[in-house]
Amino acid sequence: MAALVKIGVLILIAAAVCQGYQDIYDFDGKKLQDTDYVSLWPLPQKVQSSATAFKLSSVNFQIIHAKGSSAGSSCSILQTAFRRYFDYIFGYKKKQNTKWEPKKTFGEAVTQLQVLITSTDSECDGFPDPKADESYELSVDQPAAMLKASKVWGALRGLETFSQLVYEDEYGSRNINKTEVSDFPRFAHRGILLDTSRHYVPLKVILANLDAMAWNKFNVFHWHIVDDNSFPYMSRTFPDLSQQGAYHPYTHVYTPSDVKMVIEFARMRGIRVIPEFDTPGHTQSWGKGQKDLLTPCYSGSTPNGNYGPVNPILNSTYEFMADFFKEVSTVFPDAYVHLGGDEVDFTCWKSNPDITKFMDDHAFGRDYSKLESYYIQRLLDIVSTTSKGYMIWQEVFDNGVKLKPDTLVHVWMNGASGFGEELARVTAAGFNTLLSAPWYLDWISYGQDWEKYYKAEPQDFKGTEQQKKLVIGGEACLWGEYVDATNLTPRLWPRASAVSERLWSDKSVRDVNDAYIRLNQHRCRMIERGIPAEPLFSGYCRHEYKGNL
Amino acid sequence: MAALVKIGVLILIAAAVCQGYQDIYDFDGKKLQDTDYVSLWPLPQKVQSSATAFKLSSVNFQIIHAKGSSAGSSCSILQTAFRRYFDYIFGYKKKQNTKWEPKKTFGEAVTQLQVLITSTDSECDGFPDPKADESYELSVDQPAAMLKASKVWGALRGLETFSQLVYEDEYGSRNINKTEVSDFPRFAHRGILLDTSRHYVPLKVILANLDAMAWNKFNVFHWHIVDDNSFPYMSRTFPDLSQQGAYHPYTHVYTPSDVKMVIEFARMRGIRVIPEFDTPGHTQSWGKGQKDLLTPCYSGSTPNGNYGPVNPILNSTYEFMADFFKEVSTVFPDAYVHLGGDEVDFTCWKSNPDITKFMDDHAFGRDYSKLESYYIQRLLDIVSTTSKGYMIWQEVFDNGVKLKPDTLVHVWMNGASGFGEELARVTAAGFNTLLSAPWYLDWISYGQDWEKYYKAEPQDFKGTEQQKKLVIGGEACLWGEYVDATNLTPRLWPRASAVSERLWSDKSVRDVNDAYIRLNQHRCRMIERGIPAEPLFSGYCRHEYKGNL
Repeated sequence: MAALVKIGVLILIAAAVCQGYQDIYDFDGKKLQDTDYVSLWPLPQKVQSSATAFKLSSVNFQIIHAKGSSAGSSCSILQTAFRRYFDYIFGYKKKQNTKWEPKKTFGEAVTQLQVLITSTDSECDGFPDPKADESYELSVDQPAAMLKASKVWGALRGLETFSQLVYEDEYGSRNINKTEVSDFPRFAHRGILLDTSRHYVPLKVILANLDAMAWNKFNVFHWHIVDDNSFPYMSRTFPDLSQQGAYHPYTHVYTPSDVKMVIEFARMRGIRVIPEFDTPGHTQSWGKGQKDLLTPCYSGSTPNGNYGPVNPILNSTYEFMADFFKEVSTVFPDAYVHLGGDEVDFTCWKSNPDITKFMDDHAFGRDYSKLESYYIQRLLDIVSTTSKGYMIWQEVFDNGVKLKPDTLVHVWMNGASGFGEELARVTAAGFNTLLSAPWYLDWISYGQDWEKYYKAEPQDFKGTEQQKKLVIGGEACLWGEYVDATNLTPRLWPRASAVSERLWSDKSVRDVNDAYIRLNQHRCRMIERGIPAEPLFSGYCRHEYKGNL
Repeated sequence: MAALVKIGVLILIAAAVCQGYQDIYDFDGKKLQDTDYVSLWPLPQKVQSSATAFKLSSVNFQIIHAKGSSAGSSCSILQTAFRRYFDYIFGYKKKQNTKWEPKKTFGEAVTQLQVLITSTDSECDGFPDPKADESYELSVDQPAAMLKASKVWGALRGLETFSQLVYEDEYGSRNINKTEVSDFPRFAHRGILLDTSRHYVPLKVILANLDAMAWNKFNVFHWHIVDDNSFPYMSRTFPDLSQQGAYHPYTHVYTPSDVKMVIEFARMRGIRVIPEFDTPGHTQSWGKGQKDLLTPCYSGSTPNGNYGPVNPILNSTYEFMADFFKEVSTVFPDAYVHLGGDEVDFTCWKSNPDITKFMDDHAFGRDYSKLESYYIQRLLDIVSTTSKGYMIWQEVFDNGVKLKPDTLVHVWMNGASGFGEELARVTAAGFNTLLSAPWYLDWISYGQDWEKYYKAEPQDFKGTEQQKKLVIGGEACLWGEYVDATNLTPRLWPRASAVSERLWSDKSVRDVNDAYIRLNQHRCRMIERGIPAEPLFSGYCRHEYKGNL
């Protein structure tokens, strides 16, 4: 092994390139060394640690409900989390997970992690919601560590942090240093968009990535479930939608049971599932199983057999949407549904004489964005009756559609000077907003593009403090044109992790060199937990990925 | 499922986007339909097929040695290939592999594929060499199909083609149409470079990719085995090289037994293994286990603890190289070894006063490329004594080093007007050359970059016919900075397949639309055989990847 040398962070990265990250503890004088939080990701709001190390033994270590906790052993969210984190800490298959070893002096053992839920309503049996309290306090000491949170959601985040503090020494013992953590997310909405229409993504791939989301403290799975290409969502009300519109009606669909499983798996990890049913564009696949839903396109005076966006001039359209979203609102428990509304192509509408007549009748002139707004407005009114809130892509706002005050406007386009102008406009109008423009992870490029994602700052726009507060978070989007089960997971991780720290940690956490070191550790940890997170750069993990290849 | 419609190739691709490739046989008037070779990749030199379909039954189908063949059941290359291809044809786990179904009329069964090796020396027990005869003739008829080849290498290629002709009909029966194939490679050297230094690549990942290489008729594995970052090659003569220079001396090395296994696994598939031991640059990892091998760098008049390229002024360097390459020449049976010689950084040499003195003594002035050439010249002389041929990166040629006539110059840099000028220079000097410049697959970008690789034409430079013939092939390079076991395989396939067709098929095979259709089928076939080849674009495979995620 390489001799120990004292080096600074910049040289350190060069060393990591040559020798792998194992040498990253071989220097001093840096806060990373002193605080020993080299392996934490995303970085908590406040960490104080000391060189006093305690041992953990799989024989006597327990994660238990603290006396006085409002949650007990009937709280399945915590019970299954205890099991999960016990496994992460001690390894599924006696895997060694030595990665780094902070300074330490001899200490006693930690035999318990006590988890105390302080609120009378632990929310054990609930779903995480937009206002879920994810804050927690973690105090690692002997003989017992204490994790305090108001709700189970904070406890889940604290368990992850606790597991990240555990390290293996050179003799295989699990150690944890005396540490105090006080933590909460900077933004309430921290999401990942996966697209299951351009390619079908098998259930187990979705579940595996929900696990990885939890390790990164993401709390929203934005499920872009259908689109032009295929309609894998199996609707009870309109079974023909997937029967005709999926790539295959049996092998390439999500059954009601699949959807339930995704939602429950996510709930156990404090993750909301927000489905997106994007209309009126992006709906080619809907048309296969629902007659007259799409606009017939014309060549001259005759229909040419092609179809455009949802047909906005038929009452049957709105009747369908009412029934469809009624189902959606019961299948998906989240308070929000994403209604899309992006990239509506007017070509087909322009070709259709019935549409033209409708435009005339409504005095829309030739402004098809008015027709688009007409459709969306009626759709929003329909969805409002289901008592769901809605998210929409920015075009809906840009086109002047009247939105409920609690609407969440999703900014995905970069203007000439970036995303700031749109954020300023949306927040000036008083709407909550969500940023995705800098985080289109499907747009791959050579090299360390995680840095670019890491540096993006959601509050970096001209606006009042009040406006800044309306940015409630962001989402990393992995659109599916070039992604399926073969490459989704390594393409998502650890690149999405860059976004997770930007959305969780304090605004001041921006040091790319520091982040590089921690993210390397974090990606090796993800590999040890079974996720093929791709490398940031040359180097190695002590225990490399052992997938089926 | 989508209704059958008659569409041309361009619309077809749009349809593939929306509906997946399963509809690609739903049109006519195109040669693809008529010839039914929609699933062949790379396209053989000559295919004639008919609508007459024969059945194949796993119960009575056999692949056997034809009467009069110079190879028999003692020929392990063919015996194991028969087993492998039987499995591909009938499925390991009763997998269905329906993907497309050509026109057919009722036919009889094919119960045998007879394999006839016509040359008296089948080369059963040999290694493929630079002049290996890979040509074959395949005649599919009932009751027996006949595969004729001069050597086993052609038989291997023909078995792959035979397996690609088999399709499953809608009832699960295996079918093959009456077909005549006459085939041979356009270029003799068709390689893949994998880099096991920037990241360690586990043995099973290398083996899996050798399988995929064979499916694509690649015949060279260029093993860039060591570099600055790590030295995973375990040398018997100098065990400290990997003991000190690998990322880890046990878990991140290739033992002599590993190397043997790679070579034998490759031999069974007609693939040469050419190791690259790149000097004098790219050798930081060598220095850890071999004292005085690298040049000490100076700050002013004192060594600063850093090291540069191999030290070219010490006799001990050449003694080491003689011993080292003697070992390499026995471990690796191929007729060639790649000696690197690229990207030598002169900074350290310039700083070293002993080097300066040596330059003066040899009247090199301050032209360090002369020193580089001095080193390479001595190295080449050393390697020549092992009776190996050598490959070198283009810089060695550019710097005017005197090369043996059988040297293979590897062109990797794009000049101002592409790679053509360098190819012209190298071939004008009478050297064989190998192209990699357009095929750096580690340089990823958004979208269908396989097209760019596909369109590159190795003989597209100004030169005589004689010069063109000196281009003996090319290699797709997947450098390892951003690649390890988590993402190597989907990043390599099917992008490298674009290069495989360029190097195997006739120069006239350039239609990107046709290629898109066949390559989609081919990538789904790779998935069915267990390789996570990533998607070209939106769509699906009937049987999606079912890896461990």
